[in-house]
Parts: sequence; structure tokens; C-alpha cells
Amino acid sequence: MLSAQLADFIGQCCFDNFPETTVHMAKLAFLDWLGSAAAGGGQPPACMALAVVRGQGGSSQASLLACGEKTSCLHAALANGIASHIIELDDVHRASIIHAGAAVMPAALAVAEMTGASGRQLLEAIVAGYEVAIRIGEAVTPSHYYFWHTTGTCGTFGAAAAAGKLLGLDKEQLVWALGNAGTQAAGLWEFIADGAMSKHLHPGKAAQNGVLAALLAKEGFTGATRILEGERGFCRATAPRFDLDKITAGLGKPPFKVEENSFKIHASCRHTHPAVDVTLALAARHKLKPADIAAITVRTYRTALDITANHHPKTVYAAKFSLPFCVALALKAGSCALGDFNPENLGDGEIRELMSRVALVLDDALDALHPARWPAVVEIKTVSGDTCRERTDFPRGDPENPVTVGELVAKFHALAGGPWGEGRARALAEAVLNLERVENVATLF
Amino acid sequence: MLSAQLADFIGQCCFDNFPETTVHMAKLAFLDWLGSAAAGGGQPPACMALAVVRGQGGSSQASLLACGEKTSCLHAALANGIASHIIELDDVHRASIIHAGAAVMPAALAVAEMTGASGRQLLEAIVAGYEVAIRIGEAVTPSHYYFWHTTGTCGTFGAAAAAGKLLGLDKEQLVWALGNAGTQAAGLWEFIADGAMSKHLHPGKAAQNGVLAALLAKEGFTGATRILEGERGFCRATAPRFDLDKITAGLGKPPFKVEENSFKIHASCRHTHPAVDVTLALAARHKLKPADIAAITVRTYRTALDITANHHPKTVYAAKFSLPFCVALALKAGSCALGDFNPENLGDGEIRELMSRVALVLDDALDALHPARWPAVVEIKTVSGDTCRERTDFPRGDPENPVTVGELVAKFHALAGGPWGEGRARALAEAVLNLERVENVATLF
Repeated sequence: MLSAQLADFIGQCCFDNFPETTVHMAKLAFLDWLGSAAAGGGQPPACMALAVVRGQGGSSQASLLACGEKTSCLHAALANGIASHIIELDDVHRASIIHAGAAVMPAALAVAEMTGASGRQLLEAIVAGYEVAIRIGEAVTPSHYYFWHTTGTCGTFGAAAAAGKLLGLDKEQLVWALGNAGTQAAGLWEFIADGAMSKHLHPGKAAQNGVLAALLAKEGFTGATRILEGERGFCRATAPRFDLDKITAGLGKPPFKVEENSFKIHASCRHTHPAVDVTLALAARHKLKPADIAAITVRTYRTALDITANHHPKTVYAAKFSLPFCVALALKAGSCALGDFNPENLGDGEIRELMSRVALVLDDALDALHPARWPAVVEIKTVSGDTCRERTDFPRGDPENPVTVGELVAKFHALAGGPWGEGRARALAEAVLNLERVENVATLF
Repeated sequence: MLSAQLADFIGQCCFDNFPETTVHMAKLAFLDWLGSAAAGGGQPPACMALAVVRGQGGSSQASLLACGEKTSCLHAALANGIASHIIELDDVHRASIIHAGAAVMPAALAVAEMTGASGRQLLEAIVAGYEVAIRIGEAVTPSHYYFWHTTGTCGTFGAAAAAGKLLGLDKEQLVWALGNAGTQAAGLWEFIADGAMSKHLHPGKAAQNGVLAALLAKEGFTGATRILEGERGFCRATAPRFDLDKITAGLGKPPFKVEENSFKIHASCRHTHPAVDVTLALAARHKLKPADIAAITVRTYRTALDITANHHPKTVYAAKFSLPFCVALALKAGSCALGDFNPENLGDGEIRELMSRVALVLDDALDALHPARWPAVVEIKTVSGDTCRERTDFPRGDPENPVTVGELVAKFHALAGGPWGEGRARALAEAVLNLERVENVATLF
């Protein structure tokens, strides 16, 4: 019984047994999520959710990150989950196509605050939640992904695992919680046709539904014991093809799934990231300014061109999906951070001029490597006649090409410094990077 | 666009245009649901949900029916929805296989209390909610039903429709609410393998998720505009075969779907109802006592025998699925109400003796009529040598064989009188039967 095996893992998940790299990555994932939730919290969909949650009231159990108020654990999980995914800078796991942080973290934090958990307990919940969400995601991806937004569906299991861990559920209760997570799991891709806000609702509901499943289980509310593999269970109902072995193969042994996490440091479509990475590296090494550039050629894989070969983005949002814009922005601004995507840069004459000199080329050799690798080669010719060139196979932030702690902290400050204030953001980053020494997570907020 | 057509219907749904039969049936459905929620509210799954909801707190907006306390609208919808479906006496719609009341009513009542709606407004919301839930259910049944518990999935749309009507959403907002109802819709049949409590969670979540979708829409939170028919929408994701015409054919014209509702008056498996109906009728007409009975023969369709041909039920719950027990109970007690299914009657010597004289016979002619009809013939031989016999083709409570208002009121008293007290139950029944004259629904509780 898969749920029982997952329940054993969740129950035994123990900080003392975590390798240092696990703890390190779990802390970075938490910091990274906080930044996304901070910046997302000020966006319209998050404000709308906040209005709904405030209108309902609730006991002071957990923080609404966007405003600092306390509300009930279930409401905090919902509102913070909705805020997590809006600016599209939250972490992602390649093989499962899950933004695990957006679903697991809001659940873990809300329950940790409610129960007064320690930093170590929160880290255990994060590791357990990521493991469960990602493994189930790997089992049903890609066939599940056509209709179902995996972050919403599989995220619910991860949220239940994290919440159940923090609530101290026993094995039977954890099985019930997973059962009632699976029977609540939802999230359809149909929103994409309208660009509707449902995309943000999904991780919020995953977080809240997972917490609800765990809270109910603690009271004795039973759930299906074979929700994953059962004849009328989650996998058969939502995935034409699935591989149940991926849920349990190697379960409980490091490295844990949280270590496979990819972080985004540029606030643009991930398919623009390889070329942006290389452009930034070349510009820094050769001290290139926009006025130095005669021509730029980007060779890359087909999917990147399918999605980002747009030389004339009309909105700031569209600019995030324009490879010429992102490369030119990198040269002009020296970064592609959230704040760099603004109306001024969108209309900037120098950036537009640079964009016109960016040639995009489909490279069959690079395309053959995708999606195991996401490669790009950037070649820059200067007005003085020099040529420089560089290649990457993995966008920065992938496990194969990790970002530094300093970069992630800088990203956090860029996202959280505005809404939360520089001082508070600095203190919070410091505390999160030492999370294992925090005695009560509730004191963080 | 189907959601837009449904939104037009919801927006235009107006008490003043309802035929008298629509109003009559909607009031009976509301009364019937209240009885189920009252009796279910004292059962363990409802008590567990109540503990969770109480633990979260919330503004005083709507009633937790089980305890009379007020809580937030979203919490009331959840807890009352979970209570609705536990004792299995709630209403059902045959063609869609939906217990519409269990999902729609908790949503409608919670929002009506919060907004101080009138009885007429509540009736509009009920009619709109039943129409939307049942039509979508008809469109995807039966293929959807293998994996998905339609009461949970399609019920979410109905709850959103009812909540959206009471919140006064405009057409665009109603479309968004339906979109975000569909993207939250969930509920897998896997619980049945364990007999897990998830079955009760489903209508509770349908009610709560529908209300959430409507509350968010009122704030401007957008949803998919083609959630039903879209390429990655609800129907394609959850039903191998579906008929979208059923969603809109005749939409807006009476008779409304609430009029197709079936009520249960016996607290047993619906497949026992035809024989119980006939047995009660024969016993009353011929003044039969258990001591008068020499033999009873029940001829019926195969499915009834597959499920209920159990002469030796060991638990009160199993007795509800035993045709011999139900027939004997009807003769001894004169009814098969919730209170009649108790340990005393389960072990009663006279009932056991009567059960041994009940013969069950598969009747091919009757079987050929199923499931369009649910027929049974009961023949009773008395010790004095007389024989009487009667047939029914529809269990009482089906639209083709309606129960009287008096019977439904008696059922309500049997269910609600204990938990709520006879006096209060009587006043409530009186008020509900005159719901169109109630100025503020919040004053009912």
C-alpha cells in the first residue's frame, strides 16, 4: 500500500538524519518561497483572496504574509498559497513539473505557526512535503499534465504530508490524510485559454486542502487507504499512463527530492534563462555596454523559440516571454530581475535597438539534447570587430548549475525588501538561513 | 459558451417567474435537506468536522446546524455539507446520480444567512443551484461516475451557482465563479473500498468550494470561461463520454430540475424501497400483524437482489441493505424510519422469525424494466389461508410516485426532532413550508 509506505517515510522523516545538503536546500527553498509570496502578495489576485479571507474572520493562528495580520491556519494556507505563484519566480522541479514550494510551504508554515513548531520541525515538514508531492508528480507526469495542473493536484498530497508531519499524525492518520488529500486534489489547465487567475488559486487550494485533510485525520476522519494505486483512485482517474514505482523507489534514502529543486533568478520565462545567463556572463567578462554591440546570435532548442521568439512584445508580461527583449535587457540593465520588467524598459529606445540586432537560430544539435538539457549558445560581435561566444546546457538555478546562496539572498531582498522593508527582510533572511536554530517558527513573523 | 448560458440562466432565475410546483418542490427539498443535516450532524464524521471548524474560528455569519453556533460562511458550508450526506436519507436525482441537496443547500443557506437574503432569494438560489448541478451531472453521467463522485464534482458547480445568485454576481462574475468551481471540483470513488468518510467530505467541499469560487469572483478573481466544453476543461478531463447538449437544452424553461428530485422516506438502501412500500400498503389495508403472516414472496429486479439479498445482517448498517430485514421491519414496526434501525430491532426475535419466511425471487419481466423503473411485487400469505399481493414500479418519493407533504414533514420531525427538539423542529418546518414569506433567512436559525 503506497500511502502506508509514504506514511512510514513521513513519520520517520527526522532532522537528525538529514545530510547537510538536504538541510541547506530546504532552507534555500523556504527563503525562495518567502520572496515569491512577499512579491506576489501585493498583486491583484492575492489582494482579492485576502479580501475574501479577511471577510470570513478566523482565530489568530498563522500569518497572512502580505499584510502581517494573523488569521486561521486554513485561511493563511489559502491566501499565502495564492500569493506564492503569481510572479512566476517560485521554484520548480523539472521531472515532475511541480512548483512544490507554492503548495507545500504555505501549508507547512501555517501549521508550524499554529503549533509553535521549531525550525527543525518545519524543515522536516518541508522535506516530507516536497518528497511526497514530487514523487507522486513524477509517477503521473507527463500524461497527467495535459488536463491537470500538477502543482495543484500533486501539491495537495505534499501539503497534507507537511501538515500531517507537523500535527504529529500517527501512521493510520497519515494514510487517511493522504486519502482525503487525493480525493480533494484538483486544478484544470483550462484557465490557460483565458489567462485566468485560477493558476494562482491552485497552489492555494492545494495548501489549504492538504491542511484540512490532516486536521480532519487528527480528529479520526478516515480516508481511502489506496488513494494512489486503487482501482478508482487518483492515478487511474487522472493519468492515462503512470509509473507507481516512482513513488517508492529509494524512498527514505538521501538525496531527497528537495535537493533536485530548480530556482529561478530571472523574472522571465524559464526558456529565456540559458541565453540570459550566457549574455550576462559575456557582458561581465568583456565589460560590454549596449553601445559596444554590433550583433547577437542566440542558438538554442526548438521549444525555446516556439515560445519566446517574439521581437515585438507589447506588454511587460509579454516581454517576459520575449527572448530578444530578455537578452537586450540583460545587456542594458545587467540583470533580468522582477523590477527590471517595467514600462520604462519596455519602451526604452536602446533596448529596442539592441533587440533588433538579436538573431535567433534553431540549432538541431542543441535541440536533440532537450529537455534533458536546456542549452543555448550566445555569440556577440562588437562594433570594434571582436567576437565572443559561450554555451550553457542548464539554466542557472538548476541542480546541475546551482545559484549561490548570495544570489538567492539577493533575489529574496529584491522581492521582499519592498513589501516588507529592507530591515525586516534582512533579519528574516538571516533567521531562515539559520532555521535549524529557530525555537518557534511563530516568532519569525 | 456554456458557462455564459448558465450565467444568463442564473442571473435571470426569478421567483416571480417560477410555477407553483417549482416553489413547492424547492421548499420540500430544503426541508428534506434540513432533516438530513440535523440527523447527520450528530454522527461521528460531522462531529470531527465540527471540531476542526471550531478550532479555526470565524466571523458569525452562518449557522453550524449541528450545534446552533454561528461561524464564517465558508466554514458553515463545509460543516453542514459534511453533515448532509451521512445518514443516506438525502434527496437524489436519478439521471444525474447527484445528491444535489447535500452540495447546493449548505452553500445556499450559508450565503443566504450571511447576506440576510429573503426566503424568495433563497428559493431562487436553490432552483439555480439544482439546475446547474443536475444538468452538468446529466451531461457527464454515467462515464464520469466510475471514478468521480458526481455529488462532489458537479455539486461544486451547483454550489457556486447558488452562492453566486445570492451574492448578486453579474454575468461575467458568474462565468468566473463557474470556472473556478470547475477547477476545484473533486471527489474520487476510491473511498468506497474502505467505506471511508471521504464520502461525506465530498458534498461539504463541493459546498465550500462553490462558495469560495463565488466570493472570489465578486472580488474580480477571474476563471476559465469555457470550463465545461474547453479543450482542457472539466468534461474532457473527467468523462470519456459526455453530452454537452444536456447542459443547455430547454434551459430556463420549466419544469426545472428540482422538480425531478427523488425523496427517500425509508432509512434503508433505495433498492429495498419498492418492496417496503408495497409491504406497508398491504399491511395497512389488510390490518396484518406479524403473527398473521405465513409467508412473504418478493419478486423484483436483479440489482436489488445483488445488493440486498441478505437474510443474516449482523450490524444495523448491514440491516439497511437487507431486503428481508426491511420487509419484516415494515410489518413489525409499521415503518422503516431512521430510528427503527436500531440494535433492538436487529436482534428482535419476531423480526428474525418473519425474515425467515421472506422468499426473494428474481423476476425477469420486472428486471427488463430496470433501471427506467424499479419494480417489485410482494405477495403475502396469512396463517388463515388468505393471499394478498401488490406491485409498484417506482419507489415512493420518485417524481412518478411522490410522497405527500405530510410524509416529508413526518420524516423531517423524525430526523430533526431529536437533535433540535420537537418544538423548534415544528416551527422550522412551518417556516420552511412558507419560505416565500420569510423576510430574512438568518432569522430561521
